[in-house]
Amino acid sequence: MSKIILTGDRPTGRLHVGHYVGSLRRRVELQNSGEFDKIFIMIADAQALTDNAENPEKVRQNIIEVALDYLSCGLDPEKSTLLIQSQIPELTELTFYYMNLVTVSRLQRNPTVKSEIQMRNFEASIPVGFFTYPISQAADITAFKATTVPVGEDQLPMLEQTKEIVRKFNSVYGDTLVEPDILLPDNKACLRLPGTDGKAKMSKSLNNCIYLSDPEEEVRKKVMSMFTDPNHLQVSDPGQVEGNPVFIYLDAFCKDDMFAEYLPEYSCLQELKDHYTRGGLGDVKVKKFLNNVLQEQLSPIRTSRKEWEQRIPDIYEILHKGSMEAEEVAARTLDDVKKSMKINYFDDHALIAEQADRYKAE
Amino acid sequence: MSKIILTGDRPTGRLHVGHYVGSLRRRVELQNSGEFDKIFIMIADAQALTDNAENPEKVRQNIIEVALDYLSCGLDPEKSTLLIQSQIPELTELTFYYMNLVTVSRLQRNPTVKSEIQMRNFEASIPVGFFTYPISQAADITAFKATTVPVGEDQLPMLEQTKEIVRKFNSVYGDTLVEPDILLPDNKACLRLPGTDGKAKMSKSLNNCIYLSDPEEEVRKKVMSMFTDPNHLQVSDPGQVEGNPVFIYLDAFCKDDMFAEYLPEYSCLQELKDHYTRGGLGDVKVKKFLNNVLQEQLSPIRTSRKEWEQRIPDIYEILHKGSMEAEEVAARTLDDVKKSMKINYFDDHALIAEQADRYKAE
Repeated sequence: MSKIILTGDRPTGRLHVGHYVGSLRRRVELQNSGEFDKIFIMIADAQALTDNAENPEKVRQNIIEVALDYLSCGLDPEKSTLLIQSQIPELTELTFYYMNLVTVSRLQRNPTVKSEIQMRNFEASIPVGFFTYPISQAADITAFKATTVPVGEDQLPMLEQTKEIVRKFNSVYGDTLVEPDILLPDNKACLRLPGTDGKAKMSKSLNNCIYLSDPEEEVRKKVMSMFTDPNHLQVSDPGQVEGNPVFIYLDAFCKDDMFAEYLPEYSCLQELKDHYTRGGLGDVKVKKFLNNVLQEQLSPIRTSRKEWEQRIPDIYEILHKGSMEAEEVAARTLDDVKKSMKINYFDDHALIAEQADRYKAE
Repeated sequence: MSKIILTGDRPTGRLHVGHYVGSLRRRVELQNSGEFDKIFIMIADAQALTDNAENPEKVRQNIIEVALDYLSCGLDPEKSTLLIQSQIPELTELTFYYMNLVTVSRLQRNPTVKSEIQMRNFEASIPVGFFTYPISQAADITAFKATTVPVGEDQLPMLEQTKEIVRKFNSVYGDTLVEPDILLPDNKACLRLPGTDGKAKMSKSLNNCIYLSDPEEEVRKKVMSMFTDPNHLQVSDPGQVEGNPVFIYLDAFCKDDMFAEYLPEYSCLQELKDHYTRGGLGDVKVKKFLNNVLQEQLSPIRTSRKEWEQRIPDIYEILHKGSMEAEEVAARTLDDVKKSMKINYFDDHALIAEQADRYKAE
């Protein structure tokens, strides 16, 4: 069986280092591993509209930002199909039919939906489109017959919902859809970066993100003003490494061979951590090192982005081409689905003949 | 502005005299009135699947039954566009985007949905597709820019939901959709026929329906065994006309000029009712009259049906042609919708140019 990846992002803002560590870097590795037959990377504008219906301009403007971030991180349109969700109408048709296979109470029990609802302060006024987005995700995943969905652990309930829909569909209408597997990050540190202020989540509104598109000086400023251990007042004080954003970022970005260039007094991250824990290592020194580490990795992305920014029409062309390719695949799946559901009446000559015969016989 | 009708039925069974009196007869009149620019009659298979997902064969087999009933009652494919809902994929795309404009609690408050849920004993296990069908109906109505929806009073909350979606869409994305009006039956008697057993609703499972396709003898048997006033034991007893199915059916079907032929002792229905109320008029006599009245109206429908039954492939051709015509209209509406939502990126040269310029300027 083909190995097929589907993944993507909602275009509600530029991507930040949290996205990079949590998914983007991995995607590029998977793309370049040669292990996958097809990789679909979806800019989920339709999903973004489910809770931004009144602000379509935000979604619309951020499609190009996300595409720029993708391309500058190394997603390669020759190897991965980049597509815009709303340009694949087949996805809404699949969603429509899958909605018959899921109960309202099942959706209400979805922990991801529950916590997202809480996060957005929706309470009683949840848009139906948002409430049902796990079903729409099942449509996205199955449309491309994805076998592999590389997402974080928090997305497990979403994948479970997709698997349930696949099993239900196949049992009611016959084997048609492919059950996908989640591909979890292989490194715990890669799960989720906190904000620069130490808050659990990076968020535009909290102004605690380092964006992939931030200029060098901006990144430096954000790093130098990062939240660290609040009890580490004097250089000589023992410091805490766990839950300290500076060290969490180092866990995610630092490779041991970077010490030789930027901080030759240490040979590896563990040595640095030990010194910090003992006391006698100042935050400024660690932050300067983190800045160097980050810049080394963000610099090629930034350079690439500058180049792509001069090729906006080419990027739309890439997205257009990718979306058309993706639509062909989704249309084939939809054909299979309609055939299994036997709602392809006009192509179903057996149905017409059988009914005609029945009446002739009467 | 054009006057456009949309209406239809779920194909979950053959149509009965309740459908005829409640909607079908009226539709044919409206069709032949020449007052409407376009009439779309939809066989709502996709809606039927929302609560019959596990029984697609039932829906599939009943499409032709409903089409046969339509054609034999006088719906004319030259004047009305007959279409199958699932063959218009644009409807699912509209549904998808309208779902962002309605809240979950708004759907929960819909009285029609509430009572339908109760009727079906769904309780906690309502399929999401069924729960959201008022949104799908809004898609159906607006896709064809229908101005006029001829339905019963019980459908008022559904129409209200559609109007709300139209107003919300137009206020968020700019004037795009047409707000429809309900066209209520002009005769109270035409609202709803009870079952032949006196139960409020005709239902296949209760075996209390007279179908348009029932043979003459079958209709006679059903009429002669109809429930009447249970206290009218002797011919001489005074009888009750209100709530008496036989008289409700006469209200719906009897025209005064029918007395001359079938019951010349009376000149009008009121005289017959008065006699029954006074006492001295037997049920059998009234039922025989009702049978004649019904047969007179069902007989041409039955004859026409027999002819159409020999032309099944032609009917599929009619439905195919109608669905293609309908899809063209729906596709134009969807284009308007996407333009208003500005999710037509690849056609939006201004967007691409503006973004390219912004980056060039930096």
